[in-house]
Order: sequence, then C-alpha cells, then structure tokens
Amino acid sequence: MRIVTVGREFSSGGRELGKRLADELGFAYYDREIITEIAKRTELDEHYIASRAEQGIIPDCNVTFGRTFAYPSFAQQNDIKILVSERHIINDIVGLGKDFVIVGRSADVLLRAYKPFNLFVYADMKSKIERCRARLGENEQMSDKQIEKKIKQIDSGRARHRELISNGKWGAKECYNLCINTSDTVIKDIVPFVADIARSWFERNIK
Amino acid sequence: MRIVTVGREFSSGGRELGKRLADELGFAYYDREIITEIAKRTELDEHYIASRAEQGIIPDCNVTFGRTFAYPSFAQQNDIKILVSERHIINDIVGLGKDFVIVGRSADVLLRAYKPFNLFVYADMKSKIERCRARLGENEQMSDKQIEKKIKQIDSGRARHRELISNGKWGAKECYNLCINTSDTVIKDIVPFVADIARSWFERNIK
Repeated sequence: MRIVTVGREFSSGGRELGKRLADELGFAYYDREIITEIAKRTELDEHYIASRAEQGIIPDCNVTFGRTFAYPSFAQQNDIKILVSERHIINDIVGLGKDFVIVGRSADVLLRAYKPFNLFVYADMKSKIERCRARLGENEQMSDKQIEKKIKQIDSGRARHRELISNGKWGAKECYNLCINTSDTVIKDIVPFVADIARSWFERNIK
Repeated sequence: MRIVTVGREFSSGGRELGKRLADELGFAYYDREIITEIAKRTELDEHYIASRAEQGIIPDCNVTFGRTFAYPSFAQQNDIKILVSERHIINDIVGLGKDFVIVGRSADVLLRAYKPFNLFVYADMKSKIERCRARLGENEQMSDKQIEKKIKQIDSGRARHRELISNGKWGAKECYNLCINTSDTVIKDIVPFVADIARSWFERNIK
C-alpha cells in the first residue's frame, strides 16, 4: 500500500496539490472527507469539528490523569470524541488496503508504520494572503492584516496539534521527503513531476 | 538567464544532484571549479582553500573596523582574499550570461537579484554516514561517530558562513523553492523530475 501524506501551511495550496496528486497517481483522496465522517460517527456538527480541528485540538490530559479529578467539560469531551473518531477513521482507511493521499491530520506521524511519502507544502506570506483572498466569498471582507492573522492562528494550531503527538516539529524539513514552496508557482504545473518523484520513491521503498 | 542554486548538507548527495541536474538541463555547472579558479587567482593552494571553505570562512571584521587596530594575521588575510576572489568569480560567471547550476557558496543569497531557483538537499544522519563511508578511500578508516562529527562540523561551518551574509537561516525551507530529502533515494532516479519542476518554474518566472 502506497500512502502520500500532505502537511501544509494554511493557504499554501497544499489541499489543491494533494487532490491533484491523488488524481495524477490514481490514489484515493482524504481530507474534508474525514471531517464529514467524524460528524457522522460522533453526531457533532461538521462546521464545529472543522473549527475545532483548525484550532488544533489538544485534549487536556490532566482531566483524566491529574491529581485532582475534574470531570471534563463538554468541549473537552467533544475534543476527545473527535480525536478518537479521527484515529478510528484513519485506521479504517488503512484497512481498505488501497493507495491513498491524505491531507493534514498529522498523518505522517499517525501512519509512520506504513512508510508514507511525506510532503510539506509552504509559501511566503504574500502569496498565501493572495491565495486566501482569491477564495474569500463576496461577502467576506478582510484586510491583508486580518488574513495574515488568521493564517498564523490556524498554522499555530496545526503546529501545537502535531507537537502533541510527535517529537518532530511541524514543518521541519527533516520530517518530510519533499518540501515544496508554492510561491510564484502554479500548482497544476508541477503536480505531474511531484507524482513522478513519489512514484520513483515508492518503487525503491515499497515492495 | 536561468540559475539553479544548490544548498546541501554535507554528504546528502547535493553535489551529485547538482551535477546531474546541470547535465539534464544543459546548464553549465560550478562547484569545485570555483575553488580551482580561486586558487589560480590568489595563488593559494587549492586544498587549503577547500579546507578553509569547509570550515566556513568568517573574516574577522574587527581587524579593520575595531577600535584597536591590529594588522590581520596571515590566515585572516587569506580568508579575505578567498572571499573577495569568490565574489569576483561568481560575478564573472553571471557576466557570461549563460544558464548555470551552482553548488554551495551561499549562492542563493549572492545571486538573489537574478531570481534563481533554489534547491536544498538534505538527508537523515544514517544515510549521510553511509554516503560518506562509500566515498572514503581504502586508507581512510573512520568510525560512524567520527564521520558524524565531521558532517556536523562541516555543516556548522556552512551555517555560520551563510548567516554572516544573510538573515535567512541555512537550510531553513523558507529560503528555498524545493527541499529534497535524499534518504532512501537514488539521486539519479529523481533528477529528471526535479529538472521538470525547475523548468516549469523558469517558464513562469524568468522571461
């Protein structure tokens, strides 16, 4: 089974790259699909889950292991539900035994045992702001400063979440096979070549 | 003019990748050639220059600008000669107006005005030790620990040298267009695809 994981800075085009890469390789693709599935299994609202995920869910372990027992708050219970459900879903995906691309979810860490090909997608702030602005709806007015703040918030959530489950630092190149700077880059231009690099790596490393 | 710069961790295969990439793209290639040319122009010994370069030349500015004037030592004079000569040679290469690949020399910083495509090549320590061992001569006996120490020494010299001339940190992915982890990778397998990514980037960005 061949797995590509895609870590990405918010608004760097990582999701687009992941989706196109899956199409190019003929792999299944998982990203938002996982949120939808968590919603089904936990009966929590999909937007709520997405927003918790964006903030970087960090369940407070003291709740259960601290000296003073405190019953977890409603929000904490939900966070734990989301995380547990996410793990189950990723296990189920692996259980299918089919090649796939997965975006986010610290999947490079969770799936380490399956030797995935790990990508990290990043860009300079200017190009992330442009990419983010291009996706804003007509009714969403945001200044560059507001967009930058949002990007930094989301990324710091991702970093905190990853650092909770791994020693490796989020976005540290050592954790990835290939790090792609998408500034000044049209993603669809490079997807076939990134796919070639992944294919060549799988040929050597996945029997 | 299209320029590819290759930064690399010692023994990560960056030089091989740079050379093969130049062949693949039909670009000129500069690496050791620069050391040879410095030797010619400064009349210093080539091995001496290579060894100073490996240690990360940092001319002591206090020599000329400090409060107490001290005549620079012989070694310091040589370091300054080497650095000045290196800049001249790189300018001469640019003056030729031909596409080229350049390895090391913090060329991504020195050539920033020409908008180069910047690569960084790295690998995990295990694979760097293996790569280094494979290149050792029959009479060079080194333990893994000794090799690791050498790798770290050389890389810290490179980092110091780069940080002297730039705000960007050596090896920080933000400074590069693409960062390639060569662990578990046969370099010649991926060169054509790295060349494709560079070509596609040049098409969009270099008129």
